[in-house]
Amino acid sequence: MTPAADGTSAAERATGSGAGTAGRDRAPELAARFDGVRNALSETDAGALLLGLGADLRYLTGYTAHALERLTLLVLPLDGPAALVAPRLEAMAAAASPAGAAGLVEIVAWDETDDPFALVAARVARGGGSGRLLVDPVLPARFLLALQRAMPGRLFGLSTEVLRGLRIVKSAEEVELLRRAAHAADRVIRRIATGPLIGRTELEVSRQVRDLLVEEGHDEPSFAIVASGPNGASPHHGAGERRLRPGEPVVLDIGGTIDGYGSDITRTIWLAGPDGVQPSPEFLEVYGLVQRAQAAATAAVRPGVPCEELDAIARGIIGDGGFGEAFIHRLGHGIGLEAHEDPYLVAGNRERLAVGHAFSIEPGIYLDGRFGVRIEDIVVCGPDGPTVLNEAPRDLMVVPG
Amino acid sequence: MTPAADGTSAAERATGSGAGTAGRDRAPELAARFDGVRNALSETDAGALLLGLGADLRYLTGYTAHALERLTLLVLPLDGPAALVAPRLEAMAAAASPAGAAGLVEIVAWDETDDPFALVAARVARGGGSGRLLVDPVLPARFLLALQRAMPGRLFGLSTEVLRGLRIVKSAEEVELLRRAAHAADRVIRRIATGPLIGRTELEVSRQVRDLLVEEGHDEPSFAIVASGPNGASPHHGAGERRLRPGEPVVLDIGGTIDGYGSDITRTIWLAGPDGVQPSPEFLEVYGLVQRAQAAATAAVRPGVPCEELDAIARGIIGDGGFGEAFIHRLGHGIGLEAHEDPYLVAGNRERLAVGHAFSIEPGIYLDGRFGVRIEDIVVCGPDGPTVLNEAPRDLMVVPG
Repeated sequence: MTPAADGTSAAERATGSGAGTAGRDRAPELAARFDGVRNALSETDAGALLLGLGADLRYLTGYTAHALERLTLLVLPLDGPAALVAPRLEAMAAAASPAGAAGLVEIVAWDETDDPFALVAARVARGGGSGRLLVDPVLPARFLLALQRAMPGRLFGLSTEVLRGLRIVKSAEEVELLRRAAHAADRVIRRIATGPLIGRTELEVSRQVRDLLVEEGHDEPSFAIVASGPNGASPHHGAGERRLRPGEPVVLDIGGTIDGYGSDITRTIWLAGPDGVQPSPEFLEVYGLVQRAQAAATAAVRPGVPCEELDAIARGIIGDGGFGEAFIHRLGHGIGLEAHEDPYLVAGNRERLAVGHAFSIEPGIYLDGRFGVRIEDIVVCGPDGPTVLNEAPRDLMVVPG
Repeated sequence: MTPAADGTSAAERATGSGAGTAGRDRAPELAARFDGVRNALSETDAGALLLGLGADLRYLTGYTAHALERLTLLVLPLDGPAALVAPRLEAMAAAASPAGAAGLVEIVAWDETDDPFALVAARVARGGGSGRLLVDPVLPARFLLALQRAMPGRLFGLSTEVLRGLRIVKSAEEVELLRRAAHAADRVIRRIATGPLIGRTELEVSRQVRDLLVEEGHDEPSFAIVASGPNGASPHHGAGERRLRPGEPVVLDIGGTIDGYGSDITRTIWLAGPDGVQPSPEFLEVYGLVQRAQAAATAAVRPGVPCEELDAIARGIIGDGGFGEAFIHRLGHGIGLEAHEDPYLVAGNRERLAVGHAFSIEPGIYLDGRFGVRIEDIVVCGPDGPTVLNEAPRDLMVVPG
């Protein structure tokens, strides 16, 4: 592979040409984001933002590129223009990025013989005052240590301080991308449920899921968990060589991205097989508990509700049903340009929901060595209550397999 | 998706159950690596290694996991036992990892209410002296900043200081994995060359390549560049909506991984189409130059040769042919647990090749708006000369398409 090549063309990456943004002029949206970031930055004691390749940079500029050994860094000082410092080979792609094309960033190309960290230090010196420098949370240590060496004495913090509050509230456009991804994943669940499933390995079904995620509109698949029978009892299980059998459940937890925004849905289906083996009363009880917990937590979504309260509601129902010990993970996680981001629905998180927060609601019950049940939707907090993005059936699907 | 779930099961991840290590007892190999790392560490002024999820950790412990928001960190102090600090939910998988199972690391699980950075600081205090702390180059800034806060006054450096010299020399087992990956990619090139190609989009062919990479034995595909006609003139091009046509070349640059070790091969083929359109004399001249440059650089591989000399040999041939300006990237990059790693075959790199170095040799000529040619193999430096891992034909394949 050549130095900067990955599976998508530089032009595609630069213009964010996933179906989501095709033909859409992102200049006004990104200009507003730059304003928001500058405002938020000015309310801190920090002097500049330093964003490498990652979700913060994509949010602000639309620019994505494969993580490389060479430094790409957005320098956004308190005063003065923002600069996207990029290796010469990537400079054209950076210039063609939505923020580059919109004139929101100046492209500063560096050559093989340049010291990109000195270059960044010079830009920071021009408009960054003497305040802290906020780097994005995923900047690799090799770059952070080099920046610290290039600017000795400077204090460093995380860009999360500035970008968290902006990214956690999804715009209408972002919700639309999440919705499109959710519906594409819904269609995959429905298609998988039609079979054939019995006799195939989890891995075979998992690969089919990945193909279908793309066929139904994702830019790329992210994960495709297929956990059959006792494997469903481990929320960590992915997909293995076990073959699917009649008379057992299968947990499907799948997702991909459209223009960077993720889908993430879980359904637990029952394989009745040719003989029509029906689920046991115990399985139905467990399924019913998870379904009620999921529905109750979802119904409780509205602005002002603490994140931990949703977790407590689901946990209360499952606990009252006698399976509290078997719900071994938090209720959910935020979703957007990252598969897991704020807000987290977990005990101890007192942050209050607000309009535009988007997150998973995914209670589960895991009975070691026997089976597991999990049901997951992506939900957006609306002004009066929840907007559930997924539409695949939540009632138990009993399928021939 | 649940907190720690991705496409593979925790057990599979933990045991590194790619076909490469299946059934192989990795304990002796990893114990030797631990010894090597301890020796190298003792020759620095550093007090401990701190490795997050990444290639350095995988090399040393065999442990892989999806990058998560929670800290996983190997603490290897100068004195005393190594500890793999992991979130409770991942502790079992960490314990089942090759190094965990071999008793080379102690598993230290942390709970949701623990401060994992304080935990790391305590381990470092026990056996890490007062020397620098070497973190792996891909540790996310959020973790590095938290470690710096937890251990104020400590100097930080990169684990590369210790691990580079070990990882750059591939063992027989590592070369075998690179060879298996190379041969699997060779087979994909051959199958793609048999068509059908004409009339299909680059993206369609690229998706087929990804499927075939897995079908031929890779654990997962990494990239699948399909650059047809004028798109081949950009080494950055990935795959787009352009349809393949008769009478033009296609650059295929593809790779995947087996047990973490990558394949990476490029072939430029000619689509003759039903009418048998033959390549122009100019195309044949360019192809011939690239092929000669690739062969000459390969033939020059032997211990003691500076990396930059290989680049200069290829560049000299292409320059003498009048296309020097059109060879716009370095000759090659090292390959192993990372797709790009040391050694880099680039002007200015005076490092000398040694037995066990593995790298790509991939000269190219790019004629803007017209076409491009690149030929790439993975080569290992042997005691007396090159061992070329790829076996797909390097002579121009003129195919019906």
